Amino acid sequence: MDHLIYAYRGDEARRILSSARDGRVLGVYFIGSTKTSTIPGISVAGATPELTLYTPAVDMEYLFHGRPLSLDRIPVTPKGIPTPALITRAALNSSNIPFLVVDAGSYVEPKIPHVDLPSRIVGERIDLGRALPHEAARNLFEESKVLADELARLAELIILGESIPGGTTTALGILIALGYEAWGMISSAAPENPHALKQEIVRRGLKKSGGLSSRNPFEAVARLGDPVHVSMAGFLAGALKQDARVILAGGTQMAAVLAIAKHAKVSLEGRVLIGTTRWLLSDDSSDLVGLVRMIYPNTPIVAYDLDFSNAPHEGLRYYERGYVKEGVGAGGTCIAAAVKGVAHQRLLHSIYEEYERLINKSASTSVDRRDLVD
Amino acid sequence: MDHLIYAYRGDEARRILSSARDGRVLGVYFIGSTKTSTIPGISVAGATPELTLYTPAVDMEYLFHGRPLSLDRIPVTPKGIPTPALITRAALNSSNIPFLVVDAGSYVEPKIPHVDLPSRIVGERIDLGRALPHEAARNLFEESKVLADELARLAELIILGESIPGGTTTALGILIALGYEAWGMISSAAPENPHALKQEIVRRGLKKSGGLSSRNPFEAVARLGDPVHVSMAGFLAGALKQDARVILAGGTQMAAVLAIAKHAKVSLEGRVLIGTTRWLLSDDSSDLVGLVRMIYPNTPIVAYDLDFSNAPHEGLRYYERGYVKEGVGAGGTCIAAAVKGVAHQRLLHSIYEEYERLINKSASTSVDRRDLVD
Repeated sequence: MDHLIYAYRGDEARRILSSARDGRVLGVYFIGSTKTSTIPGISVAGATPELTLYTPAVDMEYLFHGRPLSLDRIPVTPKGIPTPALITRAALNSSNIPFLVVDAGSYVEPKIPHVDLPSRIVGERIDLGRALPHEAARNLFEESKVLADELARLAELIILGESIPGGTTTALGILIALGYEAWGMISSAAPENPHALKQEIVRRGLKKSGGLSSRNPFEAVARLGDPVHVSMAGFLAGALKQDARVILAGGTQMAAVLAIAKHAKVSLEGRVLIGTTRWLLSDDSSDLVGLVRMIYPNTPIVAYDLDFSNAPHEGLRYYERGYVKEGVGAGGTCIAAAVKGVAHQRLLHSIYEEYERLINKSASTSVDRRDLVD
Repeated sequence: MDHLIYAYRGDEARRILSSARDGRVLGVYFIGSTKTSTIPGISVAGATPELTLYTPAVDMEYLFHGRPLSLDRIPVTPKGIPTPALITRAALNSSNIPFLVVDAGSYVEPKIPHVDLPSRIVGERIDLGRALPHEAARNLFEESKVLADELARLAELIILGESIPGGTTTALGILIALGYEAWGMISSAAPENPHALKQEIVRRGLKKSGGLSSRNPFEAVARLGDPVHVSMAGFLAGALKQDARVILAGGTQMAAVLAIAKHAKVSLEGRVLIGTTRWLLSDDSSDLVGLVRMIYPNTPIVAYDLDFSNAPHEGLRYYERGYVKEGVGAGGTCIAAAVKGVAHQRLLHSIYEEYERLINKSASTSVDRRDLVD
C-alpha cells in the first residue's frame, strides 16, 4: 500500500484498509444531475454549462466501455482537460475491481447496465426554490440503503464515488442547511475557487426557504441539496448494517455525505474513511480536514499520492495547477487499487496509457484528439 | 446438501456445487414481459391475462420487501395460488444470500432498486409478428454479458432466475425458431398443459416469419422469443468469462437459455447446471431431460425435493397437484440455500412461515387473505 498519504487519523485508516486487504472490493458510483450546474461559472465538469447535464451519464459510459455513447466525446473541462473518470478507469482496470453504477437522477440515462433507484430525480436549481421534494430525498436514502444491504454482502470493502456536476455547490448547500458554518471550506474543480458565486447561490436558496437551518437531513437536502449525496448516505447506512468497510471516495463533497448520515443517526465508527487525491488535500481554497473535524471528527482521511508533474500529456499536467483535483471516486479508487496490491508505477503507467489511447483517435474511442489538450 | 435430486449427470453436478460451497453466492433475477401472456389461456402467472403484465415487477417488489408495491396484492394464479417467489424469498432469507433484479423489459418498472438494461423492451405477441427488433435481442445479450462480467467477480456461485409470464410459450418459440423439435416438451404452470394452444401460437408466428428456422440466436429471439431468455444467455456468457459457477434456476425455459448460449458459441462445459424443483422434474406433460439431451447434453440437472403434501395451507398443497411447479428461480434458489448449509426442515419451515405471514393480512403485507386459498 505505497503512495498513500495518511492525512488524518492515520492509525485508524491503516486498520480499516488492512482489514479489507484479503477481501473483495466493489466500486459503486452514484450519478445524478442538479440544474445548479447549468448556472454559468458554477461547474467546469463539462465543456459548456449545458453539457454538464450529460457528464454523469457519459462518465459512466466511458468507465464501463472506455468510450462515450450518449455524446461523441468524453467529458472535458472548457479547457479540454479530461474527466477524472480516466484515473478511476485506470485504477479499476489495473486492480480488476468490479463496479456498478447507480442512477439517483441523471439528466441522461446512461447507455450501460446500471442500477436505477425508483425515486431518481434531477435536482432543481437551488437558488430558485426547493431542490427536490422532501419525500424524494427520504426515498432515495431508503432505496439506496436496501440496495446496499444486498450489495455489501458481496464485498469486504466498498468504494463509494460520484459524478454530479455542481456537486460542490449543493454539498455546501446541504452543510449550510444543516447548520454547519462551511462557508469557504468547499473545493472546486476550477483552479480559482468561485466561493463568492457559490455562496451567493446558496444564500439565495436559503432565503427562499426562510433562512433557517434544519436538523432533518432530508429537509436539508430537499431545500439546498441534490439527489446524489443523500443516496450515498443511504448506501452508507445499508453497507454498515452488513460487515463492509467503506471508502467515501471524493473530496469536500464527502463532508455532505457524512453530515446527512450523521443527522440520519447512522454510526460510522471505525468502518468508514474518506479517500481522496493529494491535489484535493493540498488545495488551499478548501478545507476537508476542517470539515471532517466539524462534522464527524472520528472519520480518517487518506489521499492517494498521484503526481502528474512529469506526465507526458499537458491535460494531466494541468492537474498539478489546480484543475479538476478529484471526482468519479478517482482518489479513493486508486487507494483501493493500492490495497489490492497495485504498485504505484503500474497505476501511473496505466493512467498514461489510458490518456494515450484517448488522444489516439479511433472509431472505438470516438474521441477526437482536438477535444483534449495534449 | 440434503434433499437434492441429481436427475441428470449427477457427478458433475456434485462437483460444481461442492466447488462453490465455501464461496459467495449471488442471486440474479431477470424480469421482462411478453404480450403473448395476455392471450387468454397462455399464462396463469396472474389472476387475469392483463394482470400477468404486472407479475414480473410485483414478484420482485415482493422478493425485495415482502410486499407488493405496484399492485395491492402479490401475484396469484386465477385460483389464488401464490407466486413461487414465496419459495424463493424463503430460500434467500434463510440462507442470507444477496440478490439483484435485472429489468430486461418489464411492462411495469418495479418500485425497488434494480438494474436496467439500456435496451430493455416489452416483447410483442409472437403470433402477430416479430417479438423484438433483431438489434434489441443482440444488445440485450451484450448488455447482460458486460453486466455479468462485473457481477461475477463478486461471487463463486450465481443463481440465474426469471419472471416472465408467457415464458414457456416464448421458450418453445425460441427452440422451434432455432430448429429444435421441442413440440410437446415444454412445461406449464397449469396442471393441464395447454400444448395445443402454445403450438398454435408458435406455428402462427413461425408462418409470419416465413416458416424457416435460423441458426442465428438473435434472429430466433427476434422472431419468436422475448427479452428475458436472451438476456439470461448473455449473462451466462459474461459470468463464464469470470470464474463463477452458474445455476440456471428454472424449468424447461432454461432449455431456451441453453440453446441461445450454444448458438452464440458460449462454452458452458463444467460450470453450469440447471436447478429446478421436483414438481417440474416429475411433470409428465414436459421433458426437461429430453430437451437438455437434445440441446446441450453435458448440462447437469438437479432438483430440490420440496414436498407440500403435508403443508398447512391449501395454496401450497396445490403445488402437489401440478399447479405452478417452478418460477422466479424457486428450485435453484433452494438448491443454493442447501449449498450454503440450510437444512431441509429449516427451509420448509421458513416457506410455511412466509405463507402464514402473507395470509395474516396486515398493513405491512397489503395482502388480503381472500386473495389466497388457505
